[in-house]
Amino acid sequence: MGRNEVEDKVENVVDPEDEHNGDPGDKKLKQEVGEISVERLFEDQEVPSWRKQLTMRAFVVSFFLSILFTFIVMKLNLTTGIIPSLNVSAGLLGFFFVRTWTRLLHKSGLLKQPFTRQENTVIQTCVVASSGIAFSGGFGSYLFGMSKRISEQSSDTHDFKNPSLGWIIGFLFVVSFLGLFSVVPLRRIMIIDFKLTYPSGTATAHLINSFHTPHGAKLAKKQVKALGKFFTFSFLWGFFQWFYTAGDNCGFLKFPSLGLQAYKYRFYFDFSATYVGVGMICPYIINVSVLVGGILSWGLMWPLIENRKGDWYPANLKSDSMFGLQAFKVFIAIALILGDGLYNFLKVLSQTILGLSHQLLTKKLSSELPVADHSSPKSSQLSYDDKRRSQLFLKDQIPPWFAIGGYVAIAAISIGTLPHIFHQLKWYYILVIYIFAPALAFCNAYGCGLTDWSLASTYGKLAIFTIGAWAGASHGGVLAGLAACGVMMNIVSTASDLMQDFKTGYLTLASPRAMFVSQLIGTAMGCVIAPSVFWLFYNAFDDIGVPGSEYAAPYAIVFRNMAIVGVDGFSSLPKNCLLLCYVFFGAAILINLIRDRVDKKWGRYIPLPMAMAIPFYIGPYFAIDMCVGSLILFIWEKINKSKADAFGPAVASGLICGEGIWTLPASILALAGVKPPICMKFLSRGSNAKVDKFLTS
Amino acid sequence: MGRNEVEDKVENVVDPEDEHNGDPGDKKLKQEVGEISVERLFEDQEVPSWRKQLTMRAFVVSFFLSILFTFIVMKLNLTTGIIPSLNVSAGLLGFFFVRTWTRLLHKSGLLKQPFTRQENTVIQTCVVASSGIAFSGGFGSYLFGMSKRISEQSSDTHDFKNPSLGWIIGFLFVVSFLGLFSVVPLRRIMIIDFKLTYPSGTATAHLINSFHTPHGAKLAKKQVKALGKFFTFSFLWGFFQWFYTAGDNCGFLKFPSLGLQAYKYRFYFDFSATYVGVGMICPYIINVSVLVGGILSWGLMWPLIENRKGDWYPANLKSDSMFGLQAFKVFIAIALILGDGLYNFLKVLSQTILGLSHQLLTKKLSSELPVADHSSPKSSQLSYDDKRRSQLFLKDQIPPWFAIGGYVAIAAISIGTLPHIFHQLKWYYILVIYIFAPALAFCNAYGCGLTDWSLASTYGKLAIFTIGAWAGASHGGVLAGLAACGVMMNIVSTASDLMQDFKTGYLTLASPRAMFVSQLIGTAMGCVIAPSVFWLFYNAFDDIGVPGSEYAAPYAIVFRNMAIVGVDGFSSLPKNCLLLCYVFFGAAILINLIRDRVDKKWGRYIPLPMAMAIPFYIGPYFAIDMCVGSLILFIWEKINKSKADAFGPAVASGLICGEGIWTLPASILALAGVKPPICMKFLSRGSNAKVDKFLTS
Repeated sequence: MGRNEVEDKVENVVDPEDEHNGDPGDKKLKQEVGEISVERLFEDQEVPSWRKQLTMRAFVVSFFLSILFTFIVMKLNLTTGIIPSLNVSAGLLGFFFVRTWTRLLHKSGLLKQPFTRQENTVIQTCVVASSGIAFSGGFGSYLFGMSKRISEQSSDTHDFKNPSLGWIIGFLFVVSFLGLFSVVPLRRIMIIDFKLTYPSGTATAHLINSFHTPHGAKLAKKQVKALGKFFTFSFLWGFFQWFYTAGDNCGFLKFPSLGLQAYKYRFYFDFSATYVGVGMICPYIINVSVLVGGILSWGLMWPLIENRKGDWYPANLKSDSMFGLQAFKVFIAIALILGDGLYNFLKVLSQTILGLSHQLLTKKLSSELPVADHSSPKSSQLSYDDKRRSQLFLKDQIPPWFAIGGYVAIAAISIGTLPHIFHQLKWYYILVIYIFAPALAFCNAYGCGLTDWSLASTYGKLAIFTIGAWAGASHGGVLAGLAACGVMMNIVSTASDLMQDFKTGYLTLASPRAMFVSQLIGTAMGCVIAPSVFWLFYNAFDDIGVPGSEYAAPYAIVFRNMAIVGVDGFSSLPKNCLLLCYVFFGAAILINLIRDRVDKKWGRYIPLPMAMAIPFYIGPYFAIDMCVGSLILFIWEKINKSKADAFGPAVASGLICGEGIWTLPASILALAGVKPPICMKFLSRGSNAKVDKFLTS
Repeated sequence: MGRNEVEDKVENVVDPEDEHNGDPGDKKLKQEVGEISVERLFEDQEVPSWRKQLTMRAFVVSFFLSILFTFIVMKLNLTTGIIPSLNVSAGLLGFFFVRTWTRLLHKSGLLKQPFTRQENTVIQTCVVASSGIAFSGGFGSYLFGMSKRISEQSSDTHDFKNPSLGWIIGFLFVVSFLGLFSVVPLRRIMIIDFKLTYPSGTATAHLINSFHTPHGAKLAKKQVKALGKFFTFSFLWGFFQWFYTAGDNCGFLKFPSLGLQAYKYRFYFDFSATYVGVGMICPYIINVSVLVGGILSWGLMWPLIENRKGDWYPANLKSDSMFGLQAFKVFIAIALILGDGLYNFLKVLSQTILGLSHQLLTKKLSSELPVADHSSPKSSQLSYDDKRRSQLFLKDQIPPWFAIGGYVAIAAISIGTLPHIFHQLKWYYILVIYIFAPALAFCNAYGCGLTDWSLASTYGKLAIFTIGAWAGASHGGVLAGLAACGVMMNIVSTASDLMQDFKTGYLTLASPRAMFVSQLIGTAMGCVIAPSVFWLFYNAFDDIGVPGSEYAAPYAIVFRNMAIVGVDGFSSLPKNCLLLCYVFFGAAILINLIRDRVDKKWGRYIPLPMAMAIPFYIGPYFAIDMCVGSLILFIWEKINKSKADAFGPAVASGLICGEGIWTLPASILALAGVKPPICMKFLSRGSNAKVDKFLTS
């Protein structure tokens, strides 16, 4: 008998996961119980006033985390342009840092204020706002697309503006705050009346809430531990890889893991921990879409088009010429992106109009702010959580005159200064943008609340085409278009970010006023940090924006070419390229239509055109990384779903953050002129024999 | 209350290992029970008599597997000369073949006898004995070193003997059986009294046991699953590596993972799954000893001696010249090995004599060696497994008169015939070899038991020098030395193989008598198969023994050069080399003395000279592999000791076996002339720049 017991225990040691797979009913119960009781758990915790939510330590931590995330986002910007939501990582790391801080203070007896979930939300908001600038600043897209280096790869070389720290910071400061002021009066409509979901914001709020429950703190500790482990691994892996990259085409990033033939068409696993992590965070369908896009383009179309060399385009062109194969890569990708963007824009717009008119007809929307008995008829249906959250969300008001006044004032400054930065951008272009911008910002915030998909860059493209065409080629339309894109993107992107954060604040009882101030401070930080980090990258790595290199910045050339098309039309494209663009533009719309029309069960297996477009230009290698991440998560879920759900995001964040932060020492090493000592080179058998002969001779 | 229960369950999901870390007392109990249970599982299985262990089907399967493994070993012989242990592969394949065979027979109703683990061990033993001849036959070293083709590459061209099927078979038959008879009386001391590990033999036994565990043993099934997983991984890893080895100095085996400077002195991790597995099986102190030896030699002594170039030895020598640094490497290693071997030989001899005299005095000696109550005082401390294994291991005796008689008879035949094959090898040389051989065979079997490394070729070199010097240049000393090397190598190599197999037999309850017979039959097979396979290679490929070709047979020219040096005596050694040899010989004895004298607590931290000697010649890279294996096991044990204990050996076996089996398809691919497509090359930054320039020009 005693023996049996011991054997059971050994069994348990050997495969402890078994028992947890069997009982889905139990898990469901757990979930429901969890949903009912969240605010009850916090009932006896006092919610600090909005001023007390904004602590000094929160902003110090935010500052350092902002730098970390800006590095990550900048690296992603300049490699592939795919940026996963980093909200969860920001929440997790914010928790970890302040917890450590308060522990230390507590031990030394200096702790005056406990660490609350509201403070956690403030940090998360500030970090997201700050690192958001690294994306909306367009360092991998419109802004870098203005540079001389990118212009030389396009057909319009005479109009450029090279990046420089001074004007970038100035530009960001005058455009980045408008988005905040434009949507802040609408927060009540979005969050309380429309009850928009904002999936990322909600997920972050759940995470923060769970951290601050007693049980959650334990889980969070384990998650942070997992994150730390994979962070360290990813960092050290990046460090190890560095030693073998003494030259171009050296190192693990150039590893022909699927053979030399596949490598030629950029099918290889490049050992990037970052994109494995990205693949673990992104939904399966995104990863699959990217891979399908890669196979379609680099596996099928480009080899076929290459066979037409000399017929469809001249045979004696350089491989990166915009008059040859490169044009197909860039413009077909643009066609897909525009088709998808147009479809979604129209869809979201119609939904917005429908939703709004429905709200207006049922007379539930009074003006902007009527507070009092508006919720009373419903109140019987409202849960305790909803009541408490609404109450606190409506407590601290931001007066509308403040928002409107702020918007007008900043717009005026902006109209005054921007033409001095970009002389091609006339003041009346900017004025027109600022008249339409609040509506578009609202559209984007609303759409993001429904779908979690910020269409900022789509609105940016809209600005490229309209302002570019208006200005015309002779008046520097390309640069005017790109600059207008920047103005537009900054507004709509920060608008949706702010609303996302308001949702998080709503669910964690953080004051909207605290959120707004945190956003303002975060944005200000971002306007300095993001350009500085970009400046570091730009000076440290020689190959930024060079096609085929690690930092290819694919969207820079894409954005510039869109601007050129917007101004000049399609005249310079190679044979059949325009035809293919129309086909793919139509296909993008068609695929989206099918996705929405067919049964949801099948619709979710249809790839997304927007995601498919990315590998068209830079190749499918990162798609393979991402699919490896997907595969790891898939197998993990098969083995132990609950563990995978609890730790998957932490592991993924660790992988992304570790290699992301490695770019900091890497760029410092590069700036200091320290070069890696070894080149890991891959040669075919034939050239290897030649090289051996050369080396021994 | 209900909530609490649910929460607990989540905790459990999240970190199921926690509960198993806290309770060391419980774990200890589990361990003991776990260790006991191997033989308990087989308790109700009858162990067949030794005659029944030797089935016809076993030898038919052995025959085919022998051919397979001989091909593998022969290819390794003729390409690099580094041959890993193939025991585990033999056990695994033996199992699969006979299991398939018995399944088929069972279905057709013809099965008379079930497939037992003892039979599995017999197959494994037979295959190892047979394929061992492919190594000890010297087809890549001494035997081929006699040929005209090799002699033309050395400074002594007038004395050669070309290979021919007839005399090789004859030669092998008269020398290969002596090793078996020389150590068979010592098996009890090695296996039961010294409890030597014999990592390969233990791994094989573990494998065989787990395969034959009755169905109820779930753990074994999981172990097999773990083994299978790591087998697959290791196999696929070997396969993957193959693609990147298009030339010399290509691939993961040449990965300068610690930098180029360290690589120059052979400090690097070579990604060999085999040696990581070996490191997991060997005790920590062995791994540490090997690493210490590597650091002492390649990290300290060789660089220092190199600085004396031009003083201690001529500066214009080739790097592999026996008059330069190479001499230090070989002779200091030999000095350490001989010192350690001598110490242990004397220690064992004195213990044996003491034991014998004690037994004689107390009139307890019945047959071969002190058997009976020598273990009875200890028996209370012995586990059930140890007791049962010892009992069966001591049941079937091989009388000492048989072993001694056999040895003397074969030695006599050998002395009579060998001078007819090699007229340079006088009968009295052979007599002297046969007088000293048993002691050396013991040394080798002992060292192999500690380190898994057979030093047969080192003993062979000793014979080259002594007999070569004795014969002298004018009487064909070079050929006499090489032939003597062959005689010596065959004895010591088969001796260690036999003892390795006895360990496997001990752990699988196979009768030593059955093992011995199986070895005899396997050796006889090998004496025919190995020369035939060599003959096939020799005729199929024109470039065998041609420098720079695929089948360069590097050790052939090395052995011949050693023989040439040997003829001139020690006088040709470089300055201070002999002095250093004396120092290390003394140090080996001293270290052993200290190990035995000091407290056991401290003694186990003192490295073993025998293990330290191995990297002196071939470099410390495999030591790093082994230490990685140690480290993995160490961390695993820290995290979850019971799991590491249960699965460590299975994982290690999987790693060793997978890469081992991969050599089969690899050699088939090589035979078929299929070459890897890619070279993964490592260049310094400087030469990379040069190569890039060369490739683009």
